[in-house]
Amino acid sequence: METEEVLHMNKGSGKTSYAMNSTVQDNIISVAKSATRKAIVQILCSSWPMISMCIADLGCSSGPNVLRVISEILDAIYDTLHRENRPTPELLVYLNDLFTNDFNNIFQSLPSFYKKQKEEKGAGFGSCFISAVPGTFYGRLFPSKSLHFVHSSSSLHWLSQVPSGLENKGKIYISKSSPKCVLDAYLMQFQKDFSHFLESRSQEIINGGRMVLSLMGRESMDPTVPHSCYQWELLAHALMNMVSEGLVEEEIVDSFNAPYYAPCMEEMKLEIEKEGSFMVDYHEPYEIDWDGGTKSWSGSLGMLSSGERVARTIRAVVEPLFESHFGSHIMDELFRRYGELVEDHLSKNRTKYINLVITLVKRD
Amino acid sequence: METEEVLHMNKGSGKTSYAMNSTVQDNIISVAKSATRKAIVQILCSSWPMISMCIADLGCSSGPNVLRVISEILDAIYDTLHRENRPTPELLVYLNDLFTNDFNNIFQSLPSFYKKQKEEKGAGFGSCFISAVPGTFYGRLFPSKSLHFVHSSSSLHWLSQVPSGLENKGKIYISKSSPKCVLDAYLMQFQKDFSHFLESRSQEIINGGRMVLSLMGRESMDPTVPHSCYQWELLAHALMNMVSEGLVEEEIVDSFNAPYYAPCMEEMKLEIEKEGSFMVDYHEPYEIDWDGGTKSWSGSLGMLSSGERVARTIRAVVEPLFESHFGSHIMDELFRRYGELVEDHLSKNRTKYINLVITLVKRD
Repeated sequence: METEEVLHMNKGSGKTSYAMNSTVQDNIISVAKSATRKAIVQILCSSWPMISMCIADLGCSSGPNVLRVISEILDAIYDTLHRENRPTPELLVYLNDLFTNDFNNIFQSLPSFYKKQKEEKGAGFGSCFISAVPGTFYGRLFPSKSLHFVHSSSSLHWLSQVPSGLENKGKIYISKSSPKCVLDAYLMQFQKDFSHFLESRSQEIINGGRMVLSLMGRESMDPTVPHSCYQWELLAHALMNMVSEGLVEEEIVDSFNAPYYAPCMEEMKLEIEKEGSFMVDYHEPYEIDWDGGTKSWSGSLGMLSSGERVARTIRAVVEPLFESHFGSHIMDELFRRYGELVEDHLSKNRTKYINLVITLVKRD
Repeated sequence: METEEVLHMNKGSGKTSYAMNSTVQDNIISVAKSATRKAIVQILCSSWPMISMCIADLGCSSGPNVLRVISEILDAIYDTLHRENRPTPELLVYLNDLFTNDFNNIFQSLPSFYKKQKEEKGAGFGSCFISAVPGTFYGRLFPSKSLHFVHSSSSLHWLSQVPSGLENKGKIYISKSSPKCVLDAYLMQFQKDFSHFLESRSQEIINGGRMVLSLMGRESMDPTVPHSCYQWELLAHALMNMVSEGLVEEEIVDSFNAPYYAPCMEEMKLEIEKEGSFMVDYHEPYEIDWDGGTKSWSGSLGMLSSGERVARTIRAVVEPLFESHFGSHIMDELFRRYGELVEDHLSKNRTKYINLVITLVKRD
């Protein structure tokens, strides 16, 4: 199955929706904020004067984080130009995600977003045009030499497909016990996808344009370190518990595959060098708590155990992937058990994701 | 209430959806087809060579007609360039409608649309990038001097709001019995909206760029001619029947307003001249049957009476407007009665819409 069909966030704004359960992604956006600001300042400096400035957010998903990212980018532009008393160029903002993404949800928030921007920045801030460009970022999405700035958060760890050649090798995700052939196939798929990503962007970004990429990664060269695959192992554990009670068939669990790879910086740099169009300006790994912490959860979510909160965060992102394979009838039970396992795990371990932030500059 | 909140087509693909009930709009697209082809040929001739060509469909709605329009535009480009053995520029297609439009529905059809285009036209046809630009076309939507071709079908007869100053004048739509103040207020609202439309487009379209506009209109200077308001009168009739049986309160009917105006060509020309940026290249009124005819209705819809078919067509377009005012509980009954009234009307009259097609060229 291609990733396209199952890889979208839970839609709407109900209690299992991505919109209501994206606090961890929210923290991840925060760590990339200063890299984004710096990149914006440098673009405005190197490409001035500009009539229009084109900005793309790749893998934007839906929910409040989409417009939060855009708002921070617009703030950075406004602050820079305002300080130097320069006029604002026309701002073109392209939101990208897969064809199945819930763009309707984003569009419904746009009228109040535009109103707020006008109030905050004044009518003189100039025109901002937000549009949606659906499709996979592992191919071309934009016209040649059209983009000044590309942002992507929490998306590039999703592969375009389950590594090919592994379809009949049983359940596929990277874990402590993965054989070398599985690890190799994952790395190769990542290399192929990331190089397609770079090639496509190299055609679309103007010389001197910049990308800030932020994604799940690891600090070690070993792809089986706990922080990079523990969330999948616990999900597999919850599924195997259900198999042992006869609630799910073992063959169905065995045939499940996760199109997910958390690379280390060296693996990314290698592809960037091979492709050759981009220069690495900045890179840094950040530790992100599995649980966003009670304070950052609004309303009734703050009353949940941290295990339940983490389970909801993960459910909002991976449910469509699991639902298409296992059916919707086991989702509540699966994520209830998952929450218990996570709670138990968190009580014994301090568990972190590693989030890589990297800024690239398009060479002349 | 602003039009924005209620003016979107029925979503999804069920039996009352716009997607399944847009045969009349489909016929309307057909009558504008040759004007579209001619405009495309002239743009390719006057603006050649071009690296990229930007096309906007304003008020695209959702359902199969959206991509049918785009497909016809791409065919016209392909045929013209192929005949003259010229390379294809990068094609940027912007789909526009209000923030509440069902863009998700369009995006889900894009993968198969792109595949079909590639199969039909070959890989050499070049890149086509389709995106969505939500917002009202009575204001700016695109950057300055960015568009080559603008298409709009079945949209410009929707006003941005109910004519102001009439809010307390009882039920508002144009009918035989409308007092002069109501007719004047409608005309003024149309003039205001259409001039905003022209001003916005004049900034966005390059010199020599073209617009093909197709909308409900009338041949007579008199705004109360039957072909321009009969569909509203029959809907009012159905509502008043329900009032007489105690199913709907009369005050609620009295406070209903339709943000709809079908202009005559002279009224449009007057605004075009006043605004001054565009030259009229072509204009023609076309007669469109209320009922698309049995043959053009697919599957079970062909089994319905023509009254029911027309009622469904109108329902798909106006239900959100009526639902927000009257509540969803009376919709089935309202449109059942409407179908009977239309059936009776059609048995005694041959009833047509008048559809105006007009091509404008941006002056240097």
